[in-house]
Amino acid sequence: MDFDALFTDQLDALREEGNYRIFAELERRAGAFPRARSHDEDAPDEVTVWCSNDYLGMGQHPKVVAAMTDAVEKHGCGAGGTRNISGNTHQHALLEAELADLHGKEGALLFTSGYVSNWAALSTLGARLPDAVILSDEKNHASMIEGIRHSRADKVIWKHNDPEDLDRKLSALPSNATKIVAFESVYSMDGDICPMQEIVEVAERHGAMTYLDEVHAVGMYGPRGGGVSEELGLADRITLIEGTLGKAYGVVGGYITGSAALCDFIRSFASGFIFTTALPPAVAAAARMSIAHLKESATERMRQREQVEKLRARLDELGIPHLPNASHIIPVMIKDPVKCRQLADILMQDFGIYVQPINYPTVPKGTERLRFTPGPLHSDRDIEYLVQALATLWKRCAIAHAVA
Amino acid sequence: MDFDALFTDQLDALREEGNYRIFAELERRAGAFPRARSHDEDAPDEVTVWCSNDYLGMGQHPKVVAAMTDAVEKHGCGAGGTRNISGNTHQHALLEAELADLHGKEGALLFTSGYVSNWAALSTLGARLPDAVILSDEKNHASMIEGIRHSRADKVIWKHNDPEDLDRKLSALPSNATKIVAFESVYSMDGDICPMQEIVEVAERHGAMTYLDEVHAVGMYGPRGGGVSEELGLADRITLIEGTLGKAYGVVGGYITGSAALCDFIRSFASGFIFTTALPPAVAAAARMSIAHLKESATERMRQREQVEKLRARLDELGIPHLPNASHIIPVMIKDPVKCRQLADILMQDFGIYVQPINYPTVPKGTERLRFTPGPLHSDRDIEYLVQALATLWKRCAIAHAVA
Repeated sequence: MDFDALFTDQLDALREEGNYRIFAELERRAGAFPRARSHDEDAPDEVTVWCSNDYLGMGQHPKVVAAMTDAVEKHGCGAGGTRNISGNTHQHALLEAELADLHGKEGALLFTSGYVSNWAALSTLGARLPDAVILSDEKNHASMIEGIRHSRADKVIWKHNDPEDLDRKLSALPSNATKIVAFESVYSMDGDICPMQEIVEVAERHGAMTYLDEVHAVGMYGPRGGGVSEELGLADRITLIEGTLGKAYGVVGGYITGSAALCDFIRSFASGFIFTTALPPAVAAAARMSIAHLKESATERMRQREQVEKLRARLDELGIPHLPNASHIIPVMIKDPVKCRQLADILMQDFGIYVQPINYPTVPKGTERLRFTPGPLHSDRDIEYLVQALATLWKRCAIAHAVA
Repeated sequence: MDFDALFTDQLDALREEGNYRIFAELERRAGAFPRARSHDEDAPDEVTVWCSNDYLGMGQHPKVVAAMTDAVEKHGCGAGGTRNISGNTHQHALLEAELADLHGKEGALLFTSGYVSNWAALSTLGARLPDAVILSDEKNHASMIEGIRHSRADKVIWKHNDPEDLDRKLSALPSNATKIVAFESVYSMDGDICPMQEIVEVAERHGAMTYLDEVHAVGMYGPRGGGVSEELGLADRITLIEGTLGKAYGVVGGYITGSAALCDFIRSFASGFIFTTALPPAVAAAARMSIAHLKESATERMRQREQVEKLRARLDELGIPHLPNASHIIPVMIKDPVKCRQLADILMQDFGIYVQPINYPTVPKGTERLRFTPGPLHSDRDIEYLVQALATLWKRCAIAHAVA
C-alpha cells in the first residue's frame, strides 16, 4: 500500500483550501525580545515578533534565565523518569506549592503542557466520576474538547459566554448527574473574557463543579497574576483552575490547582500524568521564579496594558478594524485564508513584522485573522511602525479593490 | 455536591489494595548521578538511584549541560508559542534534522513528550486513514493504547511479541483495510525485546504500515544509538519510528520519524501537536547535543552493558531471581503490591537505595516488581552494595516465612 499517497492526498486538499501551514523559523535572542533572527530566506534577518504568547517577555527575564541556567548546572537537564519512578524532584514540589498559593488552593499538579493538563484532567474527571456530564462552552480550546471526547462522558455544549443558556442546559439534566462546567477566562483567538461571576453563580445553583482554563490570563490578570478569577475575587468559588507556564510565565508546562483530594485524584488516575517523564527540574525552577516575580511586580502587566491600549487607539485612528474585547489580544479579521497568508507574508518580507496568519483549525473557516499580542517590550516606535505598515497594506488593498 | 468525597472514595480504594502511590522526593545533582539528595524524612540525605530512565547519565553530561545553559542564555527560557504561532525556532529545525538522520528517515517531528508523540500520531493515523485498523501488541504502552482509543479506529490486539498471531490477525482483515501494526522494541517493564525481523516480514507480507516505539532503546542500541531497528538493520523497512529525548538522551520530549509526507501529515492534522506550546529551544539544543554525542561515542553504551551483566551475575550468585531478558532492564518480581512497597521502603530507609516499587497500573496486578536499571555511572561497589542489601532482605524474608 502506498501510504505516502494517502498522506499527500489530504495535504493537497489542505493546500487547495489555503490552510496548509508554513512555520516561520525564528531564533529568539534573550535580551532582544520582541526582536528575533529569522531563518526564512524571504524575510529580513531581523524581525519583530507581534504574535508571541510570551506575553510579558518573561522568557528572557534575567531572573528567570538565571534560575533556569543555575538549576541546569546544579541538577542537570532532565528529570530522568516519571513523577512516580525517580522523576519527582524537590523543584517540582516547590513549584506545585507556588502554584497552589497563586490560586489560593490546597494543591496543584504539574503536567508537561497546558494541553496535557486539560486533556488529562477532563478525561479523568469525565471517565471516573459517576454519571458525569461535562457542560462545555462552545468555544473551548482543542485540549478541552479532546479531553472531554476521550472521557466518553456525556457532553453538553452551551452557547459561548452565555450563562442563561448554561442555566437552561443544567436544568435539563437528571438530578443524579455529576455536573462539570468547563470554560475559559480569556478566549485566545477573539480575546473576549467570560462573564465569570454569572457562570459561577449558575453552576453553584445547580451544584455543578467548575473547571476554569486560565492559560491566557495567568501572570497578567489579578494583583498577583492569579488570573481573571483572582481579579474578580472568585478563585475560591471555582473547583479547578487550570493554567500554563508556557505563556505569560515564559517557560513551558501546564498545571491544575484545586482541593488536595482533587489533585491527588488526578495524580493517581490520569494516564497522561502517570505515564510521562516529568518536566526538567530546571524548567520547574524557572517557572517558579517567573511566578514569584509576577506575584510581586505589576510593572510588566501595567506596561503591557498601556501598549495594548496604544495599539488599539492607533488602529482606530487609521481605520483598521479589529475585534473589540477586554483583553490583551487584538484580532484583525481578514476572513479569508489565502489573503490572510498573503498579508502576513508581505508584513514579514517587506516590513520585518512577524504576525502568523491564524487559519483553520485554530479558528473556524471564514474567520481567518491576524492576531496581535502587544507586550511590555514593544516600544512606541514598534507600534507606530506596525500601524503604518498595516495602513500601507490597507491602502493597497483598497486600490486593488477599486481597480478590480 | 461533595466532590471531595467522590475523589476520596476512589483514593481510599487504591490505598486498600496497596496501589496508592507515594512519590520519592529527590534532588538530582549534576556530576553526582546516580547519587541524589533525598528530601524524604525517613530516608538518608544521600541515596543512590537504581530506577532512573536517564539510562546513560546523559542528563548530567557536561556537553549536554553546557548546550542547555548556553541556549538558555542565548535564546531565553520558553519558545513563546505553538510551532505554528511564533514558537518554531532554528533549534527545533536542527533537532528534527538530527533525528531524521539518526533513524535514516526523510523527516522527523517533535512533540512535548513521548506520551504525546504516541498519542497524537496514533490517534491521527487511526482517525484519518481510510478504513484504518490498528493491530496493537497486547503489552503496548499506555500512550499507544490511549492514542488508538482516541482515534476510534478498529483495534485488534495481538499476542505479545508473537508474529504468528499477528499474521493470523492480519489475514482475517478485509482487503480494503489500512493496516497499522503498532509495537515496541524494548518493553520497559519486562525488559524483553521484540522479534522485529519477523514482525516486519509479516507486516510487509500483508501490506501493513509498521509503527515502532523505540523509547527504551534509542541512544542505547545500534552503533549510533538508533535503537534496535538500527542494530538489526531494519530501520528503512519500518514506516514510523517513535522515540523520546527523556530517557537515554537525558532531557525531555518525544518525536516521530518517517517519510517527509508522513511527518507533514501528522504536523498538519494532529491536535496534540498543533495546539501546544513548543519545547523550549534550550531543550532542543541539549537533546541535539546528547544525540550527536551518542552517535559518535559507544563508551556509555558499553559500560552500561558491563554493569548490567555484572548486576545480573551477582543476583544469580546470590540466588535472587530476576526476569531474564536481552535488555538493560532487570526486573525482580515481588508479585504483591504491599510487599513491593515494604521492600522498597526498607531499601530506601535502611540502605539509601532508591528503587521505586512498580505497581498497578504500570504493571498488571499480581506482577508487582522492583525494576533496576544499572547504568555506566553505577560503580562496581554500588552493585555490590545493592546485591548485599537485597541478599540481607531476602534472608530476612526467608526467616519470616520460616517462623510464620
